[in-house]
Amino acid sequence: MKNIVVIGGGTGTSVVLSGLKNYNVNLTAIVSMADNGGSTGRLRDEFGFQPVGDLRQSLASLAREDSQEWIRKLLLYRFSHGKGLQGHNLGNLMLTALQDMSGSTPQALEIMENMFGKGRVYPSTSESVDLVIEFEDGTFIIGECNLNSGGVGGKKIKKVYLSPKAKAYFKALESINNADLIVIGPGDLYASIIPNFLATGMKTAIKTSRAKIIYVLNLMTCFCQTHNYKASDHVQEITNYSGRKPDCIIINNKKIENNVLKIYENENEFPVDNDLDIKKINIYKKELVLVVKTHQKGDALHRSLLRHDSKKLAKVLLTLI
Amino acid sequence: MKNIVVIGGGTGTSVVLSGLKNYNVNLTAIVSMADNGGSTGRLRDEFGFQPVGDLRQSLASLAREDSQEWIRKLLLYRFSHGKGLQGHNLGNLMLTALQDMSGSTPQALEIMENMFGKGRVYPSTSESVDLVIEFEDGTFIIGECNLNSGGVGGKKIKKVYLSPKAKAYFKALESINNADLIVIGPGDLYASIIPNFLATGMKTAIKTSRAKIIYVLNLMTCFCQTHNYKASDHVQEITNYSGRKPDCIIINNKKIENNVLKIYENENEFPVDNDLDIKKINIYKKELVLVVKTHQKGDALHRSLLRHDSKKLAKVLLTLI
Repeated sequence: MKNIVVIGGGTGTSVVLSGLKNYNVNLTAIVSMADNGGSTGRLRDEFGFQPVGDLRQSLASLAREDSQEWIRKLLLYRFSHGKGLQGHNLGNLMLTALQDMSGSTPQALEIMENMFGKGRVYPSTSESVDLVIEFEDGTFIIGECNLNSGGVGGKKIKKVYLSPKAKAYFKALESINNADLIVIGPGDLYASIIPNFLATGMKTAIKTSRAKIIYVLNLMTCFCQTHNYKASDHVQEITNYSGRKPDCIIINNKKIENNVLKIYENENEFPVDNDLDIKKINIYKKELVLVVKTHQKGDALHRSLLRHDSKKLAKVLLTLI
Repeated sequence: MKNIVVIGGGTGTSVVLSGLKNYNVNLTAIVSMADNGGSTGRLRDEFGFQPVGDLRQSLASLAREDSQEWIRKLLLYRFSHGKGLQGHNLGNLMLTALQDMSGSTPQALEIMENMFGKGRVYPSTSESVDLVIEFEDGTFIIGECNLNSGGVGGKKIKKVYLSPKAKAYFKALESINNADLIVIGPGDLYASIIPNFLATGMKTAIKTSRAKIIYVLNLMTCFCQTHNYKASDHVQEITNYSGRKPDCIIINNKKIENNVLKIYENENEFPVDNDLDIKKINIYKKELVLVVKTHQKGDALHRSLLRHDSKKLAKVLLTLI
């Protein structure tokens, strides 16, 4: 069975996992540990464990569609009211309880997977870290949630790093080492994807892995992270931080409807312009976009409406092994 | 396979289920729906669903010991801190989420059982009810939690009833109808056991069931419910409310250590005096008592230290089928 490692965190990674879990492949998700917003941020502040939101999303994506539909729903359920409960995600609470009882994030995840996963979810590091973001104008912010909570829109990011420095989780490194295919993205470039590469050991593992590296380009720019970024800027940053140029880039070429684009335009977000030179890089173009409504009741955060189509994306990925 | 129905709610019922689940019997728990204290009470107030605490305890007791140890732990986990989370029980939150998503308490339970139960848990009624307790002195209180929250200690209870009146849940009635053995108690007489018999239809079902009825007598009196009650008083109340005299009474005859008795004495609670006439009633005496420490961090409620020994109790019960 082929080993596929998906690197990211957040919704983009969930989309990749949801598609791939229906195939006979050995799936591992490596998930960024820099999240500190929303329900996750509250739990992190109050309990001091590693952030659980991205882990929970990945776990839910791995739940089997037939027999584990309700487990997936439980993991994703968000309380729409209730004193202190409002906005909290049940899956986050379950993971927090397991972190508390088992003593570590990797153990909490292992218990969850044994209960109902098809595949594994590893934190990129098992240490407690914050993401630091430095802008070209010399300012910086600490904490991934501050990146999206406004005030920095349109500013160019110079670099990001973890504080304090942290070692990559050894099982995450092992999975990269044994991978046949590594899928990077889609997802927030600086908030979800790159933080994974910042843990010490990650870059070397990716460089030396025999796996083919696929980068799934985001559909849209993100005003607070990748404003004005073209496809080549994305690829350049992935190459810089992962230490290796992707072997193949997957790009959506389905036209996005104007009414949806309008919603994004209001947020200063636009389709990523594909300026890649097809002679210099392997590009796989396909109609991959899907319009979905994902705003859950009780959710304080804005959720975007455009997604990659998980089924189509999985099919493309499997042709690349 | 023999059908055993356990009627109660709370810790006593959990003890019975924990013991019996290890045998090849068809288990059903019928659980009182009058709980309105602690985490359950807060959720009930805020979400308006039926109380979940007793259901959660019974579900946890039914989780398989080998493969489902962590599920049991998750269901029983209580948050020791966290704004708004402190004192909440994760299993209660899981059941609340399922009530919300599935639309009813029985459906929420069915989903839980399909995920990881060995047996079924039914609410005694699927309607929203409060317990009303009338005392001999003419006063009354509404809400089971007010019974234990002080102020009524030592007062004699005249009668209890549901407000509003509610029909018994039809699957609970079916299970009584098909039972080979019905186990009543142990547990808080007026708070956990008797409320089950108050749902319309329950009394008739018990009267007409071909099952043998076993009553497991409480180890100790309860200052707020059964102060000065002897064994015969307990049996009399069970007979009055269930409509049928138990076929057999199980009584602990192991002496309880003085240091433990002291703790109870401080709360005005004493071993139940066995004044039953062995010529008139089937009594099964056995050393059944166990001393356990059950105070969980973060739990606002007092938990008692004496329990029935679930393994010994199960063995006794199985000899009675």
